[in-house]
Amino acid sequence: MKYIFCLLLLSFSVSCLKAQGTHSILVNQNRLSGLIKELSTYGKNEAGGSDRVAYSPHDIAARKFLIQKLEKLGLDVSVDFSGNIIAKKAGSNPRLKPIIFGSHIDEVPNGGDYDGPVGSMGAIEVMETLLENNITTLHPLELILFTNEEGGVVGSRAIAGQLSPEALLTKSSSGLTQSEGIRAVGGNPDRIMEVKREKGDIAAFLELHIEQGGNLEKNQKQIGVVEGIVAIEWWQFTFKGMANHAGTTPMNMRKDPMLPAAKFILAVNETVKTYEGAQVGTVGKIEAFPGAGNVIPGEVTLNLELRDLSSEKIWKIYTELESKAKVFAEESGTDLKIVHQEVASKPALANPAIQKAIESSASSLGLSTMYLPSGAGHDAQEMARLGPIGMIFIPSKDGISHSPQEYSSPEDIANGANVLLQTLLRIDKELD
Amino acid sequence: MKYIFCLLLLSFSVSCLKAQGTHSILVNQNRLSGLIKELSTYGKNEAGGSDRVAYSPHDIAARKFLIQKLEKLGLDVSVDFSGNIIAKKAGSNPRLKPIIFGSHIDEVPNGGDYDGPVGSMGAIEVMETLLENNITTLHPLELILFTNEEGGVVGSRAIAGQLSPEALLTKSSSGLTQSEGIRAVGGNPDRIMEVKREKGDIAAFLELHIEQGGNLEKNQKQIGVVEGIVAIEWWQFTFKGMANHAGTTPMNMRKDPMLPAAKFILAVNETVKTYEGAQVGTVGKIEAFPGAGNVIPGEVTLNLELRDLSSEKIWKIYTELESKAKVFAEESGTDLKIVHQEVASKPALANPAIQKAIESSASSLGLSTMYLPSGAGHDAQEMARLGPIGMIFIPSKDGISHSPQEYSSPEDIANGANVLLQTLLRIDKELD
Repeated sequence: MKYIFCLLLLSFSVSCLKAQGTHSILVNQNRLSGLIKELSTYGKNEAGGSDRVAYSPHDIAARKFLIQKLEKLGLDVSVDFSGNIIAKKAGSNPRLKPIIFGSHIDEVPNGGDYDGPVGSMGAIEVMETLLENNITTLHPLELILFTNEEGGVVGSRAIAGQLSPEALLTKSSSGLTQSEGIRAVGGNPDRIMEVKREKGDIAAFLELHIEQGGNLEKNQKQIGVVEGIVAIEWWQFTFKGMANHAGTTPMNMRKDPMLPAAKFILAVNETVKTYEGAQVGTVGKIEAFPGAGNVIPGEVTLNLELRDLSSEKIWKIYTELESKAKVFAEESGTDLKIVHQEVASKPALANPAIQKAIESSASSLGLSTMYLPSGAGHDAQEMARLGPIGMIFIPSKDGISHSPQEYSSPEDIANGANVLLQTLLRIDKELD
Repeated sequence: MKYIFCLLLLSFSVSCLKAQGTHSILVNQNRLSGLIKELSTYGKNEAGGSDRVAYSPHDIAARKFLIQKLEKLGLDVSVDFSGNIIAKKAGSNPRLKPIIFGSHIDEVPNGGDYDGPVGSMGAIEVMETLLENNITTLHPLELILFTNEEGGVVGSRAIAGQLSPEALLTKSSSGLTQSEGIRAVGGNPDRIMEVKREKGDIAAFLELHIEQGGNLEKNQKQIGVVEGIVAIEWWQFTFKGMANHAGTTPMNMRKDPMLPAAKFILAVNETVKTYEGAQVGTVGKIEAFPGAGNVIPGEVTLNLELRDLSSEKIWKIYTELESKAKVFAEESGTDLKIVHQEVASKPALANPAIQKAIESSASSLGLSTMYLPSGAGHDAQEMARLGPIGMIFIPSKDGISHSPQEYSSPEDIANGANVLLQTLLRIDKELD
């Protein structure tokens, strides 16, 4: 009886210690830095950049290295038909849907070592920390290293059932089509529909990522609580005037489409800035036709991109810009044609409870936070179709990404991984 | 004795009648229209435009037709080593240098029927009118149909000694190099230096041409007295900012070179218009790098062209624009690089006495005139290196040229040819 009492007491004490312990366990910063460094050797080019584009020999070699690493940890590792690497860890309640976390390891051509690796190596470090602390969550866990994020969030689109047969035929940066590339990394494009999951199939999705902007650095915050991934809308504006001889056509007889185009570029910048919030507007592309130094252009086309968490605000700004463009066209005697381009990027809002969990986790670790939208697309935006998502940002030095110059410090990366770990443990208890 | 007296009297009377007659003789409008129409059949395309680019089979066939035409008139016809067709008519004073007149018959791809043909067929009509009226000028006359005017005033540059061996290797619109093309039309590029004439080798050069602008039409004038051919200067402006992610870079953290570029385009238009005169300024070319809708450009390059009869004024305007561009660059946190491009087009002023002769000739024919610069380049600008030049413009409908839509009426064309004829006769007497 005394023995049984003692056993019960011991069990209670261990549970008590465990429960206590999950708040204090931390990832191993050195081990995480080492893993990011080791991954960076796959595809490092002479300019110091990373050529680990999806489906390339560098990508394939890095994937092999990581699959072995995950298997050594004792996880249940597989590659799905779309090439995603999935490492599973069972939960204590088999009736619960999985909490999924992860990111990608592929890079843009001549990219850096942090966009993708921070979140994916951070996820592996979180898994390893759970394992070495013998922590079993209620929910099953799935760590996913997504296929070809930079080339169109291919792996997460497959899981969300958004990958069309046409998309599989597009060329990737590796030179292979998506279909060929998926096959090269061990997937099977013919059976890709089978990886699709349904809405409600996941308990939550968490992604740690570098900010890729300068907000955290500028505001001296350690952790970004992502409010969501912005919607993106594109339009092509064409001002059509009258191509004419640049020498023989007097200034007052011209119908020069360069003038309304220039006014429009300035209006985009001014108008976007007059609204409250984090919306952005960009003219990244412009072309004059015929485009000769001695010919007044007959036509100027430019691209307008607007991004915001609110589609409504995007369209409000657009409507204002459309009116201005019409005035500019009329003033210059040119015609205006606008084509709205379907880039199909709707806003993907982060779950409020998960945002709160991220903030609380950061606070409990003594880390400063700020809420901000993600201006860039991520696998999380596809996963948002299936269930609640949350994203954790860490600072990017000088806001630079997609460049050999991108950098995040080992401390910031470890902070991010710790917040990922604590958020995961927190929502494991809080979510159904 | 009485017989001799009578003969002298007859001779005097004929001279007297002849002298009287030169003021009243007129070109044959129908014959001239017919010739322009016949020439237009060489290279007419389905769209109604002319594909008679220099060195093309159409050009070669048209040249053959015109050589025969000139030979039938009894002129001394030859093709020089640069392919120029030269038809000579002796003068009564063999010690005088020739008065040269002419234009070109080649067109830009899908060009019209008037830019070139009006002046060259007008020159043939003038020659024919002189011949049928038995008029012998004091100066020898040379009618020149210049080689490849549209592709770089090749024939007149050869005569002016401005055709470098490198220029001979450039590709023409026909697909042939200049060298191959010159050979195809009966020239010899190996001996091209032999066609060079020296300063003072010509008494004068006259060219009739369509205006290619809308000034005469707008001002309802029949004849343009060309003050000269404008100088052209080109610069490439590069605004260099910081390429960045269009989604993650807040508006207030951008170094977007599109903004100073847009301000500069507007400044060019405004600044050029603040000066008195006929100067023009054009930005015909613009490019953003990398030029993607979702990337804030790192660099924007654009081309500035300024034209005026006065190089001094061009540089004054340029200096003002340069200052403004520097301010725009500074305001936007971008760097500015300017490269002045050598297009080597100095102003070619028309001889004041010849301008006066053109105006007087037009007035004596009851035609209205206006003085104006030529904003476009012409063979006359090369001939100006050798002696005094004059140019006569006739109206272009809607100011259009280099297009199937270019048009000048038969009456206007005949007016131009009559002014050419009268100016030629006038300067024949007035010049040394």
